[in-house]
Amino acid sequence: MIICKVVGNVWATRKKDELSGEKLMVVQRLDIEEKGSDEVFVAVDCVGAGIGEQVLVTTGSSARMALRNHEAPVDASIVAIIDEVQAQV
Amino acid sequence: MIICKVVGNVWATRKKDELSGEKLMVVQRLDIEEKGSDEVFVAVDCVGAGIGEQVLVTTGSSARMALRNHEAPVDASIVAIIDEVQAQV
Amino acid sequence: MIICKVVGNVWATRKKDELSGEKLMVVQRLDIEEKGSDEVFVAVDCVGAGIGEQVLVTTGSSARMALRNHEAPVDASIVAIIDEVQAQV
Amino acid sequence: MIICKVVGNVWATRKKDELSGEKLMVVQRLDIEEKGSDEVFVAVDCVGAGIGEQVLVTTGSSARMALRNHEAPVDASIVAIIDEVQAQV
Amino acid sequence: MIICKVVGNVWATRKKDELSGEKLMVVQRLDIEEKGSDEVFVAVDCVGAGIGEQVLVTTGSSARMALRNHEAPVDASIVAIIDEVQAQV
Repeated sequence: MIICKVVGNVWATRKKDELSGEKLMVVQRLDIEEKGSDEVFVAVDCVGAGIGEQVLVTTGSSARMALRNHEAPVDASIVAIIDEVQAQV
Repeated sequence: MIICKVVGNVWATRKKDELSGEKLMVVQRLDIEEKGSDEVFVAVDCVGAGIGEQVLVTTGSSARMALRNHEAPVDASIVAIIDEVQAQV
Repeated sequence: MIICKVVGNVWATRKKDELSGEKLMVVQRLDIEEKGSDEVFVAVDCVGAGIGEQVLVTTGSSARMALRNHEAPVDASIVAIIDEVQAQV
Repeated sequence: MIICKVVGNVWATRKKDELSGEKLMVVQRLDIEEKGSDEVFVAVDCVGAGIGEQVLVTTGSSARMALRNHEAPVDASIVAIIDEVQAQV
Repeated sequence: MIICKVVGNVWATRKKDELSGEKLMVVQRLDIEEKGSDEVFVAVDCVGAGIGEQVLVTTGSSARMALRNHEAPVDASIVAIIDEVQAQV
């Protein structure tokens, strides 16, 4: 999982049915010093995350496991809202 | 999912049967300022996207979930046409 | 899928049984201007591609879907021979 | 699998149920000279690893296979604690 | 699949049971001119490869298909020992 900050929202009226009702959020990967990187993408929120919060994002097929529908065409999901990171590199 | 712009089409007569009837489009990943990146690849269109539109692209095994045939040899699918992105990094 | 040029062949006598009879080709990813990139790897040919041809390559688990044996240890397959790309970035 | 060093912990109260009880650790990929790289992410510990230890991390869908629940939304797992690496590049 | 050179071994006493008995080898990706790259990682040997040999490595979920246990937590496997590469980029 990667550590990201929620930085925005995406709206899309025309989309695959399996995405209906899912909240699409723009997330930015953070580096170890909690600075934003150039890696920005869109994840489905599965935990009620809000703009500005630090979150864990799961990618690939495992992202589907966070959704009720394991066959949704989703490759990134927010699976946790981070309380604290303690790390020293 | 990544934010891309549809920039073209690909034609291929000789291909795996499972790709027959699928629309193959060239997509370019956009950065957070909506500028085109060097990341250009081909995705199957699942939502009726047109050239110049901003779209969400799902990659990997999840791309197959956007197709009727979940066993098609496809690793990138256009799953939504973007109305608006609101993000601040 | 990514746009590649077929640039060579690989021979291997000692290999997993599931690779027997499969044609292993060296492919080079092309950029949007059809110039060769540094990204060079090996894919199983599923469409009768020849050296010098431009092809579409599917990677990851979806590559297995292009083979008769969906459980072959293969992570890249040539799934189409490109007739034409029309794109403007 | 990639060679990483365990460099920290992540705490998250609000998370997907399938992550409850799993230990989330921050890992840093090491290069061949055992120096830390910029690649830092979060993995579930499956072998009782401690801070500072060198470990093997499996990513993608295979990371789920290291957990009791193969449908957990996890894309990185610590699967071994390294005793020794002997390599010469 | 990517072309790699086997450059070493990894020993790990504490590991997931599914890795018991598997030979863990350090591999280095080679570029098209057969020079070593910075990409170094660990793969399970499935074909009896030795140090210094050039091999094909399959990554991701397909790596599991090379093992007897398709549910082992493995994301990279050596699936062939290369006799010869003929390529011109």
